[in-house]
Amino acid sequence: MEAVNMKKKDPKIVVAVDESDESMYALSWCLANLISQTSTSNLVLLYVKPSPPVYSSLDAARYMFSTDVIVALEKYGSDMVNTVMRRAEAICRKSTTKINVERIVGSGDAKDEICNIVGKIKADTLVMGCHDYGFFKRAILGSVSDHCAKHVKCPVVIVKHPKQI
Amino acid sequence: MEAVNMKKKDPKIVVAVDESDESMYALSWCLANLISQTSTSNLVLLYVKPSPPVYSSLDAARYMFSTDVIVALEKYGSDMVNTVMRRAEAICRKSTTKINVERIVGSGDAKDEICNIVGKIKADTLVMGCHDYGFFKRAILGSVSDHCAKHVKCPVVIVKHPKQI
Repeated sequence: MEAVNMKKKDPKIVVAVDESDESMYALSWCLANLISQTSTSNLVLLYVKPSPPVYSSLDAARYMFSTDVIVALEKYGSDMVNTVMRRAEAICRKSTTKINVERIVGSGDAKDEICNIVGKIKADTLVMGCHDYGFFKRAILGSVSDHCAKHVKCPVVIVKHPKQI
Repeated sequence: MEAVNMKKKDPKIVVAVDESDESMYALSWCLANLISQTSTSNLVLLYVKPSPPVYSSLDAARYMFSTDVIVALEKYGSDMVNTVMRRAEAICRKSTTKINVERIVGSGDAKDEICNIVGKIKADTLVMGCHDYGFFKRAILGSVSDHCAKHVKCPVVIVKHPKQI
């Protein structure tokens, strides 16, 4: 249990990113407080986009989604991935420490996909922003950070944006 | 939001400790991963003991607690504080980084008291172990880490003990 044994040489830290300021703030906090000053860290930027069945279920509900609309939605999804990842990578480039940055893009329900990927790649730490949804939105969407804190096996850091404070 | 602006010179990190291996593991993780190698950190060991009204309510339920028993329970509580704090301080002494260690002992409901104290002393980060209570105990006791992750304003780190994995 000694501290000296718990310091990994090249830890793998996953930061769950999305289009929110909260997730970018969590990334900045991670770079400033969790990335070792003395060794190289592996930082994984993880983005989860909604899976295609989301569009199909809307379609089945007679929202009249033509192929064009589905293609447009998929393009929007890909554009969003790139926008979020570029924003996150720009923040990483400002860090003065040595980090290897890797992108992982998942697809499906964010809560489950984050837990799956964190387990699959054997991450050492998961860092997440915290969305202050309020009662109704939380009741419908559930809290991604609550779910992940319960289900992933590695330490989880939940970072709140100062605007929530 | 830049990382460089989020690094505090002498951060105040609170680790919630109790008699469990989980909390000591969380402390070790904190020392190995969150304490800066390049500046002095202020580490607060926070222990919350049950408040005296717990004994009174048992007494009111006709458990026939004499003054002797209450004194013995209070002595047990104080002994527990010292045992936990000494164990935690022994772990801190093994750390090779510069840290100022401070003890804070609260009294009352652990969930609320941790949130109160973290807010009052303006902690920069809260680190907690995670008890794997199982369904029934969780339903009765609630999860301290869940509650604190929701209610404190600073980043919260929830560390699971490997035996839960």
